[in-house]
Amino acid sequence: MVTVRLALAGVGNVGRGFLELLRDKSALVRDSYGLDLQMVAAADRSGVVAEAAGLDPVELLALKQSGQGVAAYPGGQAGLSAQEMLGLVEADVLLEATLTDLKTGQPGLDLMRAAFERGLHVVSANKGPIVLAYRDLLARAGTAGRDLRFSAAVCGALPTVNIGQRDLVACRIEKIEGIFNSTTNYILGAMTTGAEFETALTEAQRVGVAEADPSLDIEGWDTANKLVILANSVLGYPAQLDEVEVIGIQAITPGALQAASAANRVIKLLALALRRPDGTYRLRVAPTPLPLDHPLARTRGWEMGIVYTTDIMGVQTASVDERGPVPTGAAMLRDVISIYRQRG
Amino acid sequence: MVTVRLALAGVGNVGRGFLELLRDKSALVRDSYGLDLQMVAAADRSGVVAEAAGLDPVELLALKQSGQGVAAYPGGQAGLSAQEMLGLVEADVLLEATLTDLKTGQPGLDLMRAAFERGLHVVSANKGPIVLAYRDLLARAGTAGRDLRFSAAVCGALPTVNIGQRDLVACRIEKIEGIFNSTTNYILGAMTTGAEFETALTEAQRVGVAEADPSLDIEGWDTANKLVILANSVLGYPAQLDEVEVIGIQAITPGALQAASAANRVIKLLALALRRPDGTYRLRVAPTPLPLDHPLARTRGWEMGIVYTTDIMGVQTASVDERGPVPTGAAMLRDVISIYRQRG
Repeated sequence: MVTVRLALAGVGNVGRGFLELLRDKSALVRDSYGLDLQMVAAADRSGVVAEAAGLDPVELLALKQSGQGVAAYPGGQAGLSAQEMLGLVEADVLLEATLTDLKTGQPGLDLMRAAFERGLHVVSANKGPIVLAYRDLLARAGTAGRDLRFSAAVCGALPTVNIGQRDLVACRIEKIEGIFNSTTNYILGAMTTGAEFETALTEAQRVGVAEADPSLDIEGWDTANKLVILANSVLGYPAQLDEVEVIGIQAITPGALQAASAANRVIKLLALALRRPDGTYRLRVAPTPLPLDHPLARTRGWEMGIVYTTDIMGVQTASVDERGPVPTGAAMLRDVISIYRQRG
Repeated sequence: MVTVRLALAGVGNVGRGFLELLRDKSALVRDSYGLDLQMVAAADRSGVVAEAAGLDPVELLALKQSGQGVAAYPGGQAGLSAQEMLGLVEADVLLEATLTDLKTGQPGLDLMRAAFERGLHVVSANKGPIVLAYRDLLARAGTAGRDLRFSAAVCGALPTVNIGQRDLVACRIEKIEGIFNSTTNYILGAMTTGAEFETALTEAQRVGVAEADPSLDIEGWDTANKLVILANSVLGYPAQLDEVEVIGIQAITPGALQAASAANRVIKLLALALRRPDGTYRLRVAPTPLPLDHPLARTRGWEMGIVYTTDIMGVQTASVDERGPVPTGAAMLRDVISIYRQRG
């Protein structure tokens, strides 16, 4: 039995999803994988709590449920940062689940760097640092002899990154097409059946697929982020966010969607990476009419999906119907376990 | 650079597909993965050839193209078996691509056992030994400290096993549904548009999707084999082939398919593993009417696909449009490379 000491930065939806899994799956993880997962520290906006003997995920969840922060946990310290958390207790893996900041990647980026310096592995659901500093982080992980995993950052539990990195081995990938954002997919679906944009957005927020501030989704940047991560990590192409052509769904009308339907097309907010003859990729996010027999045409509502067009492994499609933050927490759990399975 | 010495048993369609990849992808494998792949031995019905300095895949392909066997390669020895091949030259990985025998698993099964005894890893596209002796082979691999990989055995390049084993970590899998056989899927598709069974089969053979003897496909046993492999390797359920309820497509009529269409259903030869409350699984292969919004309803013609219904990672679907034997050879190449990537 190997004890794995976890430090969680960010206890929002995804962080709470992870805590629920720690509560529900710890016994299975011990039995099936020989890993004893211990949450030894957590940080949120309220402050930090660290305890080498382990924190109780049920108690942490109850605190958050009651509107309090982790600083209210016995022994918690108000006002400390996640960076300071790393100095309070020894840990093996940093779980990075703070909010994405697309301009600076902070505070997640510096936190991940500090974690590698201290010899921790990093498992991130946070896209910002991976989008902005993939190569830098990978190099730091290499220097530290530690792992960087982020399978939760691109479509939660759908193994988009893992399929590309681990299964499409020795392939030339001619094209990636993806529907990477549930909010816009849900809205476009509702608008296809006649709803106006604002009505569809309100409905998406009501059922919980859309965030209170959905602008990153609507304007296409959430999708573009995920495309940049795949370009860097799967295609080996050092893409920057500013080279992606990004058109959101703000200007789409129900009329346009219905006209597409009449022509046996369905409009999706499609991410596209298209290989150029020189081995670089054209990157684009835009509302795109797909023929009804396209593998992603039937990706509806909450669903997300990806199509890899390859030279030697055919055309491979993967899609997921996942709801709420638990599947993204589950992807972080997968990453933690994979690190230790792979290292034996 | 690590040299990986390969011994290939079986130079049929899949074996030749692998040789083509060795010809076309060796430089990429050296550059991208630091592995120098050398084919040091090959065995087919004609006999064996072994050469520590490496065989030329182009020359082997030319021999097979001209209707000759590997015994005609310079230094080849007619009449020797694949077992004897293992004694002629040191190798690191056995590539098992001989024909599936569902009753005995031979000669592949004994060959794989001998390979582990000699300290080789085993990469198999051959289903028989995995279906009949999964636990025995896994135990022998463990004793030898070597790896057993068979991602090519269930739907070629589609990573059905890998997604289940490596991505759905810590999940309870409630259900697997699969379309695992191109031949029957192609025939059912043709019959839906009015073709009689015999006409559809002849067409499937003409375009190359069906084997000359398609009885294993038609009667559902190819699909059942793959289901048993997934049950053992992904579900952790020690299924035997004889507990699978198997109904093939022999008795399906165009009328039944068209009646299903009229009711907004499509009939597929579906593999099903359904979790029982006690943790065992009910296993079934049968023509099954799917509603049109089922994730596998649009899996047409050559395509194959799988749906995993899980507790914490949503409902995940993967499908592939792959043709010819190269993708299966590519899955064997993936397995070889994965062994060395994982072991660092």
